[in-house]
Amino acid sequence: MIYLDNAATSFPKPEAVYKAVDKCFREFGANPGRSGHKLALEAGRAIYETRELICQLFNIDNPMQIIFTSNATDSLNLAIKGILKNGDHVITSSMEHNSVIRPIKTLEEIGVENTVVQCDKQGFIDVKDIVKAIKENTKMIAITHASNVTGTVMPIDEIGKLAKENNLILLVDAAQTAGVYDIDVKKMNIDMLAFPGHKGLMGPQGTGGLYIREGIDMRQMKEGGTGSKSESLYQPEIVPDRYESGTPNTPGIVGLGAGIKFIIEKGIENIRKHEEYLTDYMLNELKKIDMVNIYGPQDAKKQASVISINIGDLDSSELSFILDKAFDIAVRSGLHCAPLAHKTIGTFEQGTVRFSIGYFNTKEDIDQSIEAIKKICEEI
Amino acid sequence: MIYLDNAATSFPKPEAVYKAVDKCFREFGANPGRSGHKLALEAGRAIYETRELICQLFNIDNPMQIIFTSNATDSLNLAIKGILKNGDHVITSSMEHNSVIRPIKTLEEIGVENTVVQCDKQGFIDVKDIVKAIKENTKMIAITHASNVTGTVMPIDEIGKLAKENNLILLVDAAQTAGVYDIDVKKMNIDMLAFPGHKGLMGPQGTGGLYIREGIDMRQMKEGGTGSKSESLYQPEIVPDRYESGTPNTPGIVGLGAGIKFIIEKGIENIRKHEEYLTDYMLNELKKIDMVNIYGPQDAKKQASVISINIGDLDSSELSFILDKAFDIAVRSGLHCAPLAHKTIGTFEQGTVRFSIGYFNTKEDIDQSIEAIKKICEEI
Repeated sequence: MIYLDNAATSFPKPEAVYKAVDKCFREFGANPGRSGHKLALEAGRAIYETRELICQLFNIDNPMQIIFTSNATDSLNLAIKGILKNGDHVITSSMEHNSVIRPIKTLEEIGVENTVVQCDKQGFIDVKDIVKAIKENTKMIAITHASNVTGTVMPIDEIGKLAKENNLILLVDAAQTAGVYDIDVKKMNIDMLAFPGHKGLMGPQGTGGLYIREGIDMRQMKEGGTGSKSESLYQPEIVPDRYESGTPNTPGIVGLGAGIKFIIEKGIENIRKHEEYLTDYMLNELKKIDMVNIYGPQDAKKQASVISINIGDLDSSELSFILDKAFDIAVRSGLHCAPLAHKTIGTFEQGTVRFSIGYFNTKEDIDQSIEAIKKICEEI
Repeated sequence: MIYLDNAATSFPKPEAVYKAVDKCFREFGANPGRSGHKLALEAGRAIYETRELICQLFNIDNPMQIIFTSNATDSLNLAIKGILKNGDHVITSSMEHNSVIRPIKTLEEIGVENTVVQCDKQGFIDVKDIVKAIKENTKMIAITHASNVTGTVMPIDEIGKLAKENNLILLVDAAQTAGVYDIDVKKMNIDMLAFPGHKGLMGPQGTGGLYIREGIDMRQMKEGGTGSKSESLYQPEIVPDRYESGTPNTPGIVGLGAGIKFIIEKGIENIRKHEEYLTDYMLNELKKIDMVNIYGPQDAKKQASVISINIGDLDSSELSFILDKAFDIAVRSGLHCAPLAHKTIGTFEQGTVRFSIGYFNTKEDIDQSIEAIKKICEEI
């Protein structure tokens, strides 16, 4: 099986991740932050260590500003709903995943306005269009770092400057970039960074996080036991407790820590280089096949390791079905939970077949995929 | 180490749980419900199998009415905030965990009224007091199945009848009972059942669930990618998708399935019998020690396997510290995130030391705990 669905979840994970989860389960599978006994303290320390690793990766000063969530969607909902109130305005892009668009559309019910800035056919946003969208009541820019459909990388540096100048909160969805791209929240002026634990960060499913810049005060989504201020009937204000009610996913978070350690050891720039090389190679090979339509930048320097294609007007789900059944190649078809992105690139009806490359993919995986695509082109 | 903190999280888990998680990670760690390839389908099937096992355990007809969450707190927030609107009234008890009390108190901000029915010193509720609390705008009764402080079991059967007669939604917090007590949502007229995956159900941390009776329509807490109706900018109405945005915790849910299989194999009545036997034994031994104050029913038939004590007026955190350091016994001290319960039983200042027994505890564990308590009594 050739796995090219890393944008959905990375697979496999580093061996160290599996081992860290198993060790946590067996040796200190207690409830952190609740009890004071040795196992609970060890679990608490392990979780804190993952916070520190996240800080190291994203250049964050205070580990307590990392909120653990169950996935990036959870993080994005917390950020968007935590900040935006009736009367506020939020700017987003037409390349967003439903995890950004749907919460924003839902907030219309309570009187939060939004502007969806139209991107071009390759998924690029013009920062001038964001400038035009800014209104008196604009509170936040919520934008993906890289499209999950075309890989198109957004100019977060520029957008960060713009947000800072205009005193807007910049929320970045790093679902496709965390663990692969160099993200520096300070340099990029990112106020809130939402990330999954189970994609580029190579941790287990069921993990995710939200970085909140110090000084940002927002509502929590949930209340409950926090292990702190137990005497109060109201949620404590201390961070991260305020946003982390209930028993955390300790083994998952420990596995995430192991994933990040792996990334730091390998060097994030080497991971990016490897994925960029394979993306470049695959794009070049695909360009040689007449019947293949490639979407997005078609330039490995300008896109994450996500390549969306179609073969003629073959239904995208049929193509992915053939790749799976006849060639044992795992990809994803359809709209990838990003309908506006498909409207933007012109594939709302057909969808696309997405090849998403991970660190463990090889040139042979790409060669075999290209061979498969060629054969399918010949037979239809 | 003697682990007696199973009310916080069960430890260890059955070997089959560790193995199931590891196998899922290594063999089908894909994203279920998103892509159509073999690994994704296998992940989807495994998740569905856990839904079915939950149905078997709680006598639920439709597996699609099970919502996976990240813990019981997540489930309780979803249920409470999904149902209650401005102008509604909710009845709860004074024995609740903060995961019930805090969301309810927070809803006061949007005009949801509440009545906290006072329980007696042993934690028992008088159903007549619930009857008295019912008002014209009462929408829900939210109550724990068994107190996490004293183990006191609530008369859910009676409360279920009352709720049904009065057309109220009954939400039960089964944090301390799921997997140990026989819960039949139909017989007990439970409309919504919130449960953790990582306590009595013996699954991994990071898992939990909410059963919602068919026909109950409630708001979701989060919107995002659901793998369904991807073309829509709004959350789909189909269940469970509506309430399950983002990548699920596949390995966790698979581990939870293995935990429930273990319970079904052993027989839930045997698990309960074993815990009841140890609870009864420990209570009897504790009663022989003069300096020990025992809280709650002091009757293994009337309480879950949770025993709260104090030794004279020794600070509860000091006692648990000594048990851990000098005797290698892991318990929990303090308020256990249930301040009203401690006010009810009279331990708000001192807290209690909680011994919570699990299926893997033995008579020897209890003997050693009793010996330790005796020694501490002698020395202070």
